[in-house]
Amino acid sequence: MDGTPGYSDSKEAHVRRMRRIEGQVRGITKMIEADKYCIDVLTQVSAVNKALEAVALNLLDEHLTHCVTDAVSEGGEVADEKIKEASAAIARLVRS
Amino acid sequence: MDGTPGYSDSKEAHVRRMRRIEGQVRGITKMIEADKYCIDVLTQVSAVNKALEAVALNLLDEHLTHCVTDAVSEGGEVADEKIKEASAAIARLVRS
Amino acid sequence: MDGTPGYSDSKEAHVRRMRRIEGQVRGITKMIEADKYCIDVLTQVSAVNKALEAVALNLLDEHLTHCVTDAVSEGGEVADEKIKEASAAIARLVRS
Amino acid sequence: MDGTPGYSDSKEAHVRRMRRIEGQVRGITKMIEADKYCIDVLTQVSAVNKALEAVALNLLDEHLTHCVTDAVSEGGEVADEKIKEASAAIARLVRS
Repeated sequence: MDGTPGYSDSKEAHVRRMRRIEGQVRGITKMIEADKYCIDVLTQVSAVNKALEAVALNLLDEHLTHCVTDAVSEGGEVADEKIKEASAAIARLVRS
Repeated sequence: MDGTPGYSDSKEAHVRRMRRIEGQVRGITKMIEADKYCIDVLTQVSAVNKALEAVALNLLDEHLTHCVTDAVSEGGEVADEKIKEASAAIARLVRS
Repeated sequence: MDGTPGYSDSKEAHVRRMRRIEGQVRGITKMIEADKYCIDVLTQVSAVNKALEAVALNLLDEHLTHCVTDAVSEGGEVADEKIKEASAAIARLVRS
Repeated sequence: MDGTPGYSDSKEAHVRRMRRIEGQVRGITKMIEADKYCIDVLTQVSAVNKALEAVALNLLDEHLTHCVTDAVSEGGEVADEKIKEASAAIARLVRS
């Protein structure tokens, strides 16, 4: 494995999504500064959570498709560690 | 009710937290641009999710404490609507 | 407040839903005993999670509508405690 | 792949956990029948959600370790489909 991340094919799309999320987060900060109604702020927070979740699930799919697949093809401890690492990342995501 | 949001007492704290989250989100964008390892990016995404969740739960507590309480004291349809609205916001949060 | 839970009007509906969930959980146990495919078992686990979430959100809405509303009408410490308690329950739900 | 599920090594442990969850769910039904306080019922629902999550994450780890690894070793479409399937199961879990 040459250190190229699993998401490199869709890197630009991820950067675009993250920039959009950055804008949404800045928007929430401004809503709070402008004393906007709590429920409207909460609605935006839930929207950002959903957007982040979508980014994470894409990254995870690409990680399984490339990094985990390469490691499994290599076999042995490299594969075991890569799977353990992926499972821990999935657990953090499920629990966040 | 004079339109002051329930979170106004802790507005500065919320703004500080959201600015920090903004920085974390920008950090994730930079990690992706710098081809950082998928799992490290995913770890940061889970951290931002957790931070956003904490902001949302605080906002919700303050909304119940002030806005919902004021509406219930007023009674009638105002109270019913405010509770329905809060329950819908809680559902969005649980499902995001 | 006379100790009647907020959900008493829809108690039968809750019992029916919980019985159905009980059957779903028993079904998952049987799938595992019958060596069913992992993904099919996981699909059922996600379905039970969703069903439980719906029960919880209904219970919460009824709690806000009755118990929290009664406590707020009573005012003082009773109201403050009831809101703190509801917020803590919401946090547990969001984080489960 | 001989159709043995990835979790077969820990099948008994999964069955025990699911039986315990079954008992917890039955306990919630009884609490509702006995008009127990909403918040206490909600606390138990969150506990069952957490227990189910733990079962799901274990099943997923074992699925990646055995089923996905075997499919990747086989390569080709079998591997691609198995990864797509796992990613979809992870998404359902994250969103449930």
